[in-house]
Amino acid sequence: MRVSAGDRTVDVPTVSFRDGAVRLIDQRRLPRRFEVLELRTVEEVARAIEDMAVRGAPAIGATAAYGLALAESRGEDLAEAADRLRRTRPTGHDLFAAIDFVLQAVGRGETAAQAAEAFGRDSVERCRKIGELGEPLIRDGARVLTHCNAGALATVDVGTAIAPVRAAHGKGKQLVVYVSETRPRLQGTRLTAWELLQEGIDHRIVADGAAGSLMQRGLVDVVIVGADRIAANGDTANKIGTYEKAVLAREHGIPFYVAAPFTTVDPTLASGRDIPIEERGEGELLSVGDELVSPEGSRALNPAFDVTPAHLITGFITERGILTPEQLRDQLGV
Amino acid sequence: MRVSAGDRTVDVPTVSFRDGAVRLIDQRRLPRRFEVLELRTVEEVARAIEDMAVRGAPAIGATAAYGLALAESRGEDLAEAADRLRRTRPTGHDLFAAIDFVLQAVGRGETAAQAAEAFGRDSVERCRKIGELGEPLIRDGARVLTHCNAGALATVDVGTAIAPVRAAHGKGKQLVVYVSETRPRLQGTRLTAWELLQEGIDHRIVADGAAGSLMQRGLVDVVIVGADRIAANGDTANKIGTYEKAVLAREHGIPFYVAAPFTTVDPTLASGRDIPIEERGEGELLSVGDELVSPEGSRALNPAFDVTPAHLITGFITERGILTPEQLRDQLGV
Repeated sequence: MRVSAGDRTVDVPTVSFRDGAVRLIDQRRLPRRFEVLELRTVEEVARAIEDMAVRGAPAIGATAAYGLALAESRGEDLAEAADRLRRTRPTGHDLFAAIDFVLQAVGRGETAAQAAEAFGRDSVERCRKIGELGEPLIRDGARVLTHCNAGALATVDVGTAIAPVRAAHGKGKQLVVYVSETRPRLQGTRLTAWELLQEGIDHRIVADGAAGSLMQRGLVDVVIVGADRIAANGDTANKIGTYEKAVLAREHGIPFYVAAPFTTVDPTLASGRDIPIEERGEGELLSVGDELVSPEGSRALNPAFDVTPAHLITGFITERGILTPEQLRDQLGV
Repeated sequence: MRVSAGDRTVDVPTVSFRDGAVRLIDQRRLPRRFEVLELRTVEEVARAIEDMAVRGAPAIGATAAYGLALAESRGEDLAEAADRLRRTRPTGHDLFAAIDFVLQAVGRGETAAQAAEAFGRDSVERCRKIGELGEPLIRDGARVLTHCNAGALATVDVGTAIAPVRAAHGKGKQLVVYVSETRPRLQGTRLTAWELLQEGIDHRIVADGAAGSLMQRGLVDVVIVGADRIAANGDTANKIGTYEKAVLAREHGIPFYVAAPFTTVDPTLASGRDIPIEERGEGELLSVGDELVSPEGSRALNPAFDVTPAHLITGFITERGILTPEQLRDQLGV
């Protein structure tokens, strides 16, 4: 992605593998600091995923693929490295898809490095296609609501939900993006707003609870979000708060799209009921940054994701086209 | 309300008038520090309302009433003081109801001090009644979702939405309160959780976007919120995010109650469309505490309230009984 720092503009992928290191933009530091981490062991890569230095299902997938390339370059056991990487975060599917992809390629005699490189390259290509195919959904003058970060930072580059926004902006369409801040980790405020600023795309940060009010006031034309895992029937796990926006969009007759590559689709799960939902630490809610905001002694409940049932989803913007939940199921042949 | 500080427990109202000063708990400092402000001019009182040292529609109402008593004690013009106080915050109705109550009493020959005292005393009595009448709505073992702070701190004492919770807890019922943190100012985390801790009531802080997921998982039995202004048809303005919870409650067949005294009801407004909605500064969203969390250059949109249409409200828990929107309208005789 394009990153402007002062008078310099550089083009950096979210994650890459080069000179024996997995390199990734440290997303915990943004938007205050732009830092690229160099990870030289599988354990470091696994911890970067767990600590959310890298997040976003497709970006996590590519990071794990590169983690296997790293293990290979160090002469380590790939199965063991894969085990460690699989135990980082449970909900997003691309992690598991990427590891399987690399291990299968190695089984066919390719190197993990080649396979990881192919996975990363394909990942960007999928996002570009999502942008191109999703772009017509955004009319000139559109007000787009998104949640969390499904931009370049959530992928190797380009993004999922933000890819059509970039494409529409690139075609000269006027648009404004309502960015819900996305507590507890504020990925909307810290990452999506930052990406949109880099691209010069007009946006407004709003409280997570403001989406319904914006819709009620006629200020939202389309909702586009990313996905962490899509079950075979189209039920979709994504950042906590997504389900609410889907219910509200239907209440107001506003189209609700999920933008995701097929690496996010898990054909082995019949429905969203089977998607494992990560519970993260209470501290993410009790504190903001380093500051405890809650009273000492209060407890929190912090599910990181929720599941939006397929019937609330207008369409999936994928690299193979914009698919209804039924068409998605047909594509899977399940 | 009961406040424990170390081994000491004191009983303090949110706001009072004593020895020539309006005294109020500084809600900007909680839960880290418990401080009582002493305000000795009407301008100080007005600024305390604007800066949200005191907030919550009934508490703002009582503060304004005491502000008029303060003006009287200083020999100042009451109409001028009333004008200044009315210009503090536009949405909550109790502010206007309280000022009118005091001015009318003065017109009948009472002192502003007497009238303000009566308003404050009645306000606590109304909340007690709301607690008593609402208590049966909370069954033993209930999981209650609330939003923002509609506890003792939002009133002179006892609270509105939290009054039935206190009453049920007082009767020995087991219950847990899901407290949505309520961005941008975190009144749920900072105030409601603090009040519940003081009372020893079990609670969990959740992200504002998590309510739908909790309902979907069958974890919520009843939603109770407060109100800032209720139009004659029952449409209700309350903290941003309330409308979303009402839509989600209906989606899941969960009863949704608004707890409020009649001082919050505005019989002059036919519907919620006419309620003025305060837009607060962008800084509340762009920063958390003193820390800028957004990228420099990003903008925010920060409506402080939203409007829940009457048809989504199961009932109003008032000092006169639990009323459907139709019954509320009948009570008003409009």
